[in-house]
Amino acid sequence: MGNADPVYPSSSVERLHRVAIPPPQPFVKSLKNSLKETFFPDDPLRQFKKQPPSVKFVLGLKYFFPILEWAPRYTLEFLKSDLIAGITIASLAIPQGISYAKLANLPPILGLYSSFVPPLVYAIMGSSRDLAVGTVAVASLLTASMLGNEVNANENPKLYLHLAFTATFFAGVFQASLGLLRLGFIVDLLSHATIVGFMAGAATVVCLQQLKGILGLEHFTHGTDLVSVMRSVFGQTHMWRWESGVLGCCFLFFLISTKHFSKRKPKFFWVSAMAPLTSVILGSLLVYLTHAEKHGVEVIGHLKEGLNPPSFGDLIFVSPYLTIAIKTGIITGVIALAEGIAVGRSFAMFKNYHIDGNKEMIAFGMMNIAGSFSSCYLTTGPFSRSAVNYNAGCKTAVSNIVMAIAIMFTLLFLIPLFHYTPIVVLAAIIISAMLGLIDYEAAVHLWKIDKFDFVVCMSAYIGVVFGSVEIGLVVAVAISLLRVLLFIARPKTLALGNIPNSMIYRSLEQYPNANNVPGILILEIDSPIYFANSSYLRERIARWIDEEEDRIKSSGETSLQYVILDMSSVGNIDTSGISMLEELTKTIDRRGLKLVLANPGGEVMKKLNKSQFIENIGQNWIYLTVGEAVGACTYMLHTCKPNLEKAEPEAWNSV
Amino acid sequence: MGNADPVYPSSSVERLHRVAIPPPQPFVKSLKNSLKETFFPDDPLRQFKKQPPSVKFVLGLKYFFPILEWAPRYTLEFLKSDLIAGITIASLAIPQGISYAKLANLPPILGLYSSFVPPLVYAIMGSSRDLAVGTVAVASLLTASMLGNEVNANENPKLYLHLAFTATFFAGVFQASLGLLRLGFIVDLLSHATIVGFMAGAATVVCLQQLKGILGLEHFTHGTDLVSVMRSVFGQTHMWRWESGVLGCCFLFFLISTKHFSKRKPKFFWVSAMAPLTSVILGSLLVYLTHAEKHGVEVIGHLKEGLNPPSFGDLIFVSPYLTIAIKTGIITGVIALAEGIAVGRSFAMFKNYHIDGNKEMIAFGMMNIAGSFSSCYLTTGPFSRSAVNYNAGCKTAVSNIVMAIAIMFTLLFLIPLFHYTPIVVLAAIIISAMLGLIDYEAAVHLWKIDKFDFVVCMSAYIGVVFGSVEIGLVVAVAISLLRVLLFIARPKTLALGNIPNSMIYRSLEQYPNANNVPGILILEIDSPIYFANSSYLRERIARWIDEEEDRIKSSGETSLQYVILDMSSVGNIDTSGISMLEELTKTIDRRGLKLVLANPGGEVMKKLNKSQFIENIGQNWIYLTVGEAVGACTYMLHTCKPNLEKAEPEAWNSV
Repeated sequence: MGNADPVYPSSSVERLHRVAIPPPQPFVKSLKNSLKETFFPDDPLRQFKKQPPSVKFVLGLKYFFPILEWAPRYTLEFLKSDLIAGITIASLAIPQGISYAKLANLPPILGLYSSFVPPLVYAIMGSSRDLAVGTVAVASLLTASMLGNEVNANENPKLYLHLAFTATFFAGVFQASLGLLRLGFIVDLLSHATIVGFMAGAATVVCLQQLKGILGLEHFTHGTDLVSVMRSVFGQTHMWRWESGVLGCCFLFFLISTKHFSKRKPKFFWVSAMAPLTSVILGSLLVYLTHAEKHGVEVIGHLKEGLNPPSFGDLIFVSPYLTIAIKTGIITGVIALAEGIAVGRSFAMFKNYHIDGNKEMIAFGMMNIAGSFSSCYLTTGPFSRSAVNYNAGCKTAVSNIVMAIAIMFTLLFLIPLFHYTPIVVLAAIIISAMLGLIDYEAAVHLWKIDKFDFVVCMSAYIGVVFGSVEIGLVVAVAISLLRVLLFIARPKTLALGNIPNSMIYRSLEQYPNANNVPGILILEIDSPIYFANSSYLRERIARWIDEEEDRIKSSGETSLQYVILDMSSVGNIDTSGISMLEELTKTIDRRGLKLVLANPGGEVMKKLNKSQFIENIGQNWIYLTVGEAVGACTYMLHTCKPNLEKAEPEAWNSV
Repeated sequence: MGNADPVYPSSSVERLHRVAIPPPQPFVKSLKNSLKETFFPDDPLRQFKKQPPSVKFVLGLKYFFPILEWAPRYTLEFLKSDLIAGITIASLAIPQGISYAKLANLPPILGLYSSFVPPLVYAIMGSSRDLAVGTVAVASLLTASMLGNEVNANENPKLYLHLAFTATFFAGVFQASLGLLRLGFIVDLLSHATIVGFMAGAATVVCLQQLKGILGLEHFTHGTDLVSVMRSVFGQTHMWRWESGVLGCCFLFFLISTKHFSKRKPKFFWVSAMAPLTSVILGSLLVYLTHAEKHGVEVIGHLKEGLNPPSFGDLIFVSPYLTIAIKTGIITGVIALAEGIAVGRSFAMFKNYHIDGNKEMIAFGMMNIAGSFSSCYLTTGPFSRSAVNYNAGCKTAVSNIVMAIAIMFTLLFLIPLFHYTPIVVLAAIIISAMLGLIDYEAAVHLWKIDKFDFVVCMSAYIGVVFGSVEIGLVVAVAISLLRVLLFIARPKTLALGNIPNSMIYRSLEQYPNANNVPGILILEIDSPIYFANSSYLRERIARWIDEEEDRIKSSGETSLQYVILDMSSVGNIDTSGISMLEELTKTIDRRGLKLVLANPGGEVMKKLNKSQFIENIGQNWIYLTVGEAVGACTYMLHTCKPNLEKAEPEAWNSV
């Protein structure tokens, strides 16, 4: 039954469109193509084509040093804007730099060093016009927690410092190599949902760490998780210093209110941008005048004047510390990249210019390598600073140069002024910056739109807050990948029906008005057929047929004769998938049914052809559209019953 | 330009079919559905529905003990067939069992024990009619190499033996829990290509190990890789025993020729099935008569008579050995499952009955747990023995019972006969069995059809032969998963064209006769839009538009106005994907073009709707088919140029 080849009148054959098998390609060519699509999807060498060598050289220089591209077109008008933006971000960079360096358990002065050399490198090599370079809270915290596992920063500060430089060096090498090897897509493994959860978790953890500064505690846990911190804080209530607490809350209130004010009136962006520096000045003055440092308000203390000392000789390339430095470098490097590239992309989209992710990675990498040679630790493009830069009207990366010069000036002449800056003010600055990272609205949005993304987001958050930063990250990435694998392992199969008054066949679930076609079961497979799903698909299709036959039995319709597989969405197939199709054909044959394929894609047709599957099933049982397949099957059903072998040719177009 | 909503005459609106948004489902219901699809794709409880409790109980018993299903229908005719098959496989089981136990560095008698209890358990709980239960070479080798890393089998044979029982116990527990938790799809991660490469590699390694027996060497490397074995063999050429070598080669020749003979004349399957036992008898006789054991031909020696002693008390549940036992159990358990289930499935397909993978796992698990309590080590359904069983005409699992009884008889009365069996004969038996596992034709087939699968296969082979069994396995699974991830991370985007004389739009690459539509770029995306590919897709689509505009510029066609995204194959979208579409819409708008969607699926429509994307782009810019989208765009292009705002309504059906 149903095994005869379809017979049509010769006149109707023309209406049928054949499914084409793409012309065979030499192996080397197809390999080259797929490598190109994998590693050079944006075709960065397009403009190099058909150019003389000298032009190619200039283009190449411009590719690696975008400053050569825009510097010749730089105007005085731009300089004015960049000057304002640069000074504004410098005023933010000084207190933030000092705060984040404290967070990383590094000498505060490193925060300033890190805002001097790396911005200069980025200005030369970076392609974003809005990114402001500097250290970030999350990477600082990660550095502290990862290196802290190996070396105690208080007991062995010098080794810890050198390890931080080494980790920065490896972060830079890793970032640059990702870019050079065109492996930028590794950053894509951090989905939007992961980043929302991770950032919120990291912000929570960073805020919790600030309780030490706010409460003026001397001893504090090394753990970053909620439980250890709470135990540490409430285990020594007798050590809390009210002076410190009051001061901290006042400054926090001041910072948060200026932030809200600037948010409501974007014109006054500079109010919130200047607030941290104002707090530092006010706090330092207050301590200087009241001698509060003798009453439980800790201050920064002596800072060394002068520019970045070279640190090339401090890098540690010997075991047992090499492993931890490499590990820290890679993890912090990826996190820093993810933030920097996301920030760069967002602003580029606002201003409608393009950023090449792989090129940015090289710029970030070089900037961190240079940084590790000049006493800087990990830098990237922090969101807060870049947003201020953008709002201040920056035009090009010159604002970074202006910031670097301002920081240089500070390092050379103004450093002694920070002697009396209270730690509690720095803690308030960090907390107010971190609160902006807890984006609960985004989490609500995720819940509404995609429950799975919400789960990913929450597991990142919970992992970071209750476990550690690394645990949260690993869990979230693993769940995200699991989702991708599940999509392949458990693909959707949909039964299709005819949309009334058309030749269109669509999912019965999505289109309640679509109708079953009597005697024919139309199934759509929504993913490539790979080893990971071939067993599942075999069983699921068998179940579809069972269920359809049950339904027909109870409703008394025409009994099932044809199973049409709509292969439009099957992007690829592997050898396990082909075996599955072969087995499926046999099983369906044995049940007295006939398998018909509709619209297999190029890649699939190529492989089906090579494996002789097309010969086995017969080219006549493969149709270009579901509509044509249904037409042919219906024709066969109507004319050839009960014995298909005796089918009389008749025009089926009229059916 | 191009931003006005499409305007059609009211009469033509009816021709357009709206893309439906599936009715909203309560969260709990959709969660339940997707859990069901993930864990119960075959709907095993279907027959339980709408049955009284007593029937449900009987059905449940029959589900777990298939013997209750078929035993009542058992006939004398069946018994005759099963008797012949059972005795045939017993004659194969005795020498193979002893050989594989030697391979696992376990006492030879364990091979016989393992062919007694487990087959009985499987006969009660298994659902395959053709599977013959026994030990397998690869799992034996794995046991030896994994346990050997921890405990030396020669120095501490008792501990090693107990660890082997413990590993078998954990393998059983793991297998049964996989089945009970419906996690059978873990076995699917071993693709066909992986198994081909892995089996060939393992067979090569096993053959290399036999050089010890063939050459009569006393000292041999513990490594399994080619380099160590070759170094070990050629480092002690002076220790080679020619008597052993000659004997081994003769028997190997005998075994291989019987195999070829039986392959050519399938009726004489029993010739190759009996050959191993014949070799053992001939070899033993020869040694007994010539006293060759005193001239360098090693023999098995004394074996203890009697049935399996209980080994429940021997299981070791204390550290430091627990970890290695669990690890060995899990890995060997998965490998054994993969072989057993693949074998069961293949024969079930030949005879057209169904095997439930999860149920089989429970049977395998119980059989190994029972085995670990009765001095057996890991058993599964080996291909060679099952093929003999099938060829001998077995009808049900009773052939396993017959085999078990024959083994019992041997254990009780015939054991002393094996005293003089030369090790070299066992080595020859193993080699001749292993040669069949090196399926180079399958590798050639993979190369022809799917280069990537070939790479997977070869990396498994090379990993096993030059590294270790575990390395080969991990590398092959990792590469297979990488392929799945790459499919998602670098999805295909295809430009579509119109197939002449139809409303069908297909890939320009696959259908060289398809034509570009002037002013419109039609792109098909061939995978779900997830975080892992959203950046890629944004860049790739931008490049498609660039390239199309370049092409148009050079050919002087109508300038590009519309970009139609065919979403038919986009099975799902996450929040990163939606952000990407939003950004894409903005970018395309800014270039003066208009984005049009065609045929988004149910899941995608649901999410686009929830995220307000549909409102932003306008429901009128989403069409059910590419054809309708092209129709509307062409209509707009022809009537509304140059100013779309002033479009005059006119029938576009005629276009």
